[in-house]
Amino acid sequence: MELAYHFRDASLAALALTHRSAGKPNNERMEFLGDALLGAIVAEMLYETHPKATEGEMSRLRSQLVNGQALAGLARELELGDRLKLGSGELKSGGFRRDSILADAFEALVAAVYLDGGFDACRDTVRTLFADRVAALPRSSKDAKTRLQEWLQAHGWPLPQYELVGTEGEDHARIFDVNCVVNEPMVITAAGRGSSRRLAEQDAAELVLNRLLEPLDG
Amino acid sequence: MELAYHFRDASLAALALTHRSAGKPNNERMEFLGDALLGAIVAEMLYETHPKATEGEMSRLRSQLVNGQALAGLARELELGDRLKLGSGELKSGGFRRDSILADAFEALVAAVYLDGGFDACRDTVRTLFADRVAALPRSSKDAKTRLQEWLQAHGWPLPQYELVGTEGEDHARIFDVNCVVNEPMVITAAGRGSSRRLAEQDAAELVLNRLLEPLDG
Repeated sequence: MELAYHFRDASLAALALTHRSAGKPNNERMEFLGDALLGAIVAEMLYETHPKATEGEMSRLRSQLVNGQALAGLARELELGDRLKLGSGELKSGGFRRDSILADAFEALVAAVYLDGGFDACRDTVRTLFADRVAALPRSSKDAKTRLQEWLQAHGWPLPQYELVGTEGEDHARIFDVNCVVNEPMVITAAGRGSSRRLAEQDAAELVLNRLLEPLDG
Repeated sequence: MELAYHFRDASLAALALTHRSAGKPNNERMEFLGDALLGAIVAEMLYETHPKATEGEMSRLRSQLVNGQALAGLARELELGDRLKLGSGELKSGGFRRDSILADAFEALVAAVYLDGGFDACRDTVRTLFADRVAALPRSSKDAKTRLQEWLQAHGWPLPQYELVGTEGEDHARIFDVNCVVNEPMVITAAGRGSSRRLAEQDAAELVLNRLLEPLDG
């Protein structure tokens, strides 16, 4: 696979492929910018392809696509390893094969395209590289209640309870408030709402699921 | 302060200001996209304004600019609170004043500008909003050895040792390898390199500092 972009300034591409072991300047600063651009461009792809996914689902899908191992895979497809500039220590120890070094170079290369050709060029390049991977994602995921139930069963936890807490508004525009409660092994409660009881339950289940799945720094 | 952007499609701005307590559709999905765009645009600003900052420094500067409290502050300057659409429960409990709700609306609004006017419009808008804040950041931070020393002293840890491990290359292009070692209360070692012993020490100090400061999920 080749990068569908031709650099006007080849020195930007070269810098993107220069690992810190080769001294300064190197690709570390570009990697910071590329990581952020990649996050935004893939976020937009998921926003378009998964119109019903919640924020939490899109976030999880993105971390399936954008993580060290996945980016290293893309770097290998682009054969970046052969073009990396490494210090002699990393060369000897085979640094050109290491996931973290490859993933960083890939991110830096995304920034290099942005700096060389602007956002549209960068976006086109990233979208081309990720098109197949995004297309391979489950299109419409199981609903939140089902996913929560499966998670709880897989972990040997009892099933949640859904409690209708109240309703709001006139008959034709009623809003339902539902709590989803997991009691054991720890108490987790979330308040959902929606235009039907079912939608409110899905909403509450999604929130509980997010708490169970998301890293603590969330 | 006003948003320096005029929406073609006012419904996008309205959706960005619709909190989940008002039912669906709401601004949660847009918030995901806006958060990512904001991260990329502010990353680029720092990449430009802080040409000597390392990846770790830029990352810390960005989190000073882009966090719940800071974004809520921007939302207040834009008087978003008055325009939020909230469910009656949140209305009663003063949700329009809450940092998290305001910050989320701000992020969603960034996405709305992107969806309505494209990347350049979104970038211009964000850069205008953040210009003063970015200008107020320390332009050249203290060097890494000084910052590491200050951190260690503030935490009552002993000072680090710098050990020249070796050199590489010819006299005119020599590269120095230096380890920075913290022994107590836990052992942290990092290998730095640079075209002088001093630069290699700074490099190693920066890496130790990153390990001390960065969240464990890094």
